[in-house]
Amino acid sequence: MSRIASVRTTDVRFPTSLELDGSDAVNVDPDYSAAYVEVSTDEGETGYGLVFDCGRGNELITAAMDSYGELLVGRDTDELVNNLGDASRRLVHDSQLRWLGPEKGVSHMACGGLVNALWDIRARREQKPLWLLLSEMSSEELISAVDFTHIRNALTPEDAAGILARAQEGKAERIAELKERGYPAYTTTPGWLGYSDEKLVRLSKEAVEAGFGMIKLKVAGSIEDDRRRLGLAREAVGPDVRIAIDANQRWEEQEAIDWVNQLQDFHPYWIEEPTSTDDILAHAAIRKGVHPVKVATGEAVHNRIIFKQLLQAGAIDVMQIDSTRVAGVNENIANLLLAAQFDVPVCPHAGGVGLCELVQHFSFFDYAAVTGSMENRMIEFVDHLHEHFAEPVVVADGRYQAPALPGIGAEMLRPSVERWTFSSGAGWQDVLTR
Amino acid sequence: MSRIASVRTTDVRFPTSLELDGSDAVNVDPDYSAAYVEVSTDEGETGYGLVFDCGRGNELITAAMDSYGELLVGRDTDELVNNLGDASRRLVHDSQLRWLGPEKGVSHMACGGLVNALWDIRARREQKPLWLLLSEMSSEELISAVDFTHIRNALTPEDAAGILARAQEGKAERIAELKERGYPAYTTTPGWLGYSDEKLVRLSKEAVEAGFGMIKLKVAGSIEDDRRRLGLAREAVGPDVRIAIDANQRWEEQEAIDWVNQLQDFHPYWIEEPTSTDDILAHAAIRKGVHPVKVATGEAVHNRIIFKQLLQAGAIDVMQIDSTRVAGVNENIANLLLAAQFDVPVCPHAGGVGLCELVQHFSFFDYAAVTGSMENRMIEFVDHLHEHFAEPVVVADGRYQAPALPGIGAEMLRPSVERWTFSSGAGWQDVLTR
Repeated sequence: MSRIASVRTTDVRFPTSLELDGSDAVNVDPDYSAAYVEVSTDEGETGYGLVFDCGRGNELITAAMDSYGELLVGRDTDELVNNLGDASRRLVHDSQLRWLGPEKGVSHMACGGLVNALWDIRARREQKPLWLLLSEMSSEELISAVDFTHIRNALTPEDAAGILARAQEGKAERIAELKERGYPAYTTTPGWLGYSDEKLVRLSKEAVEAGFGMIKLKVAGSIEDDRRRLGLAREAVGPDVRIAIDANQRWEEQEAIDWVNQLQDFHPYWIEEPTSTDDILAHAAIRKGVHPVKVATGEAVHNRIIFKQLLQAGAIDVMQIDSTRVAGVNENIANLLLAAQFDVPVCPHAGGVGLCELVQHFSFFDYAAVTGSMENRMIEFVDHLHEHFAEPVVVADGRYQAPALPGIGAEMLRPSVERWTFSSGAGWQDVLTR
Repeated sequence: MSRIASVRTTDVRFPTSLELDGSDAVNVDPDYSAAYVEVSTDEGETGYGLVFDCGRGNELITAAMDSYGELLVGRDTDELVNNLGDASRRLVHDSQLRWLGPEKGVSHMACGGLVNALWDIRARREQKPLWLLLSEMSSEELISAVDFTHIRNALTPEDAAGILARAQEGKAERIAELKERGYPAYTTTPGWLGYSDEKLVRLSKEAVEAGFGMIKLKVAGSIEDDRRRLGLAREAVGPDVRIAIDANQRWEEQEAIDWVNQLQDFHPYWIEEPTSTDDILAHAAIRKGVHPVKVATGEAVHNRIIFKQLLQAGAIDVMQIDSTRVAGVNENIANLLLAAQFDVPVCPHAGGVGLCELVQHFSFFDYAAVTGSMENRMIEFVDHLHEHFAEPVVVADGRYQAPALPGIGAEMLRPSVERWTFSSGAGWQDVLTR
């Protein structure tokens, strides 16, 4: 019998604050980081997971994965990876650890990292990339992976079964289409607040030439800057390419409405994170106040219960799931099913470290086996740090190409992990002694 | 000039799971614990703070306080303790650490522990217990301590100034009254799920004899047990003593309504935590569905933004602030002001380790200088673990007596901290080698 032999965590950080890549109105100087975890069995299998964050504090996620990891070590691997619903509940609802959230923040993200590593083992065993594993999994097993606690008033297991059953028709064709043509992407690369106007214009034009149908600009520094930058971007991309804007939770409710309405001339497609993602009621008011601009949020939504309410309250037009904020694959299946239940498109958040590599699987799965639709759906793409991954994302002609290697996409290259281990790695030693 | 010289944390746990004290439908086997912190200056002052949790994971709160503590060490003590609004924002809104929440979970509770230790230094300097420090503090300084981010649509600084100004009249008399007569308490001691019927009846009667006007019972194990236990308790206390019930987030929305309505015969006063505290909309529906039973929540509400929405949505009749869930004294001032703005009474959550000692200060302050009312207001009391504190709470005739020692109430006795340091302390060595 195979047992979990070890849970090994590493604090991996990249010194991105030196370049102002990733700068926005709130995250002014992130060092994009991965709390990296390797879950190994006594028979030599390893599953990889990670949690993205902005640098300081990465050590707390690794510590939390170490703590939760103690609940896994010594357990029967087959039991865990063949009943991933139970595996997740065992961590998320631990009777003592639960108080630390419940189901939010450091502890919840750490659960997600571990749960994902278990899914990685499962996908490797079946020799499938996660999206294909999920797309070909039985409806019963998918539903058993979902924790319906506190969402049954919006989505029952029966509702979920209905959604999955309706998507059976044409699934094989959609899987073939995904393998051939991939899935639409949009890019945030041009729009960081730290970039000059010249760089913004150049990168915006390059994005259109590269086939992206939407770019995204960070806003909420100053209204004058936003009007100028949005004007430049609109001129650069022309009237037909969508421009999303992103305030990273900077505003109060009325401020968001007033600010966005001063940008209506430039026809932004959506306003992302106009205010605190905890604030369901404010999002609902903002959505009414900024029409026809759509409202998007999700990268900081800490669990399915908040997403459920955003949907129930009619507070969002676009749901942005994140691969490492919630408790792993299981909770993102729940999130996809909730979005399908309310007929709201999912456009995943990505960027950071590994978020593109991980989150793409959910959109591919959504198209193959949940909604069967790509309408108004795109995966965020930022061209950062992919070179550190065993299977870096491939975006061509503005589309994510289907990942093919077995697993969830979290495995990093050993030399990258070693070089950027904080702060003992050679990369950090170079930076710190500059 | 005084500077912060050290931030020292200790993982203190008590083996309460051995006795089933503190057992409820969700927290089945808590080891009541304190992530304890001592913030010391280079001139020999020390401020004490703590964060309560249920055992496993306490090491993550101490680790988080160590990490955030690095942002304090070396800083000018006067600047910190004379501008506690800035001090709190410096921690809560750190540009990299913010991603770990934002403002929720482990990271947020850790900020609260440190912020509270700074308030402890301030209160000791002024030789006042926290409640009196706050009650006699200028309105300007109180307002400068509040972070109005993402609550301005419900409470502006001008609103806060108005509330505080109206409470000036009679303040001195109310302070005198508090010193003489204290503040009403209710007790949860009789009602833990792990207790036998006989113990429940005996402790319920003792509670009435001790002068408490309300007792609280844990529910949501099984409806038959709840009806039997509630019947026994009602018989024991008579028709005039209130009985609150507490489900610790166990139910779905409709389940909560149906369950509580099956207990209406016994006239429960409030239902506490009927469902996830993240679920504002479900609380609103439950409140409508269980009338005339009141709805209470708050011990797991992770920040002022959720409280704001619970109030905006008319989702609660009773707001239960907690002293160590949010980012310290500052955020609890915000919470008290929000409750006052919506005219909802605050009945603080207590119990655990040190929660009674800390949270009483907010009710005393609320009566003296915020609402000036004790109507339908009570502080929870559980008679556990007080003997480990420098100034244990005193509850007499069903009322908390005014704390008198300078500080916020978090200082623990050195022998207790040493004996129950996990897992090297002598107490744990005894337990673990039993």
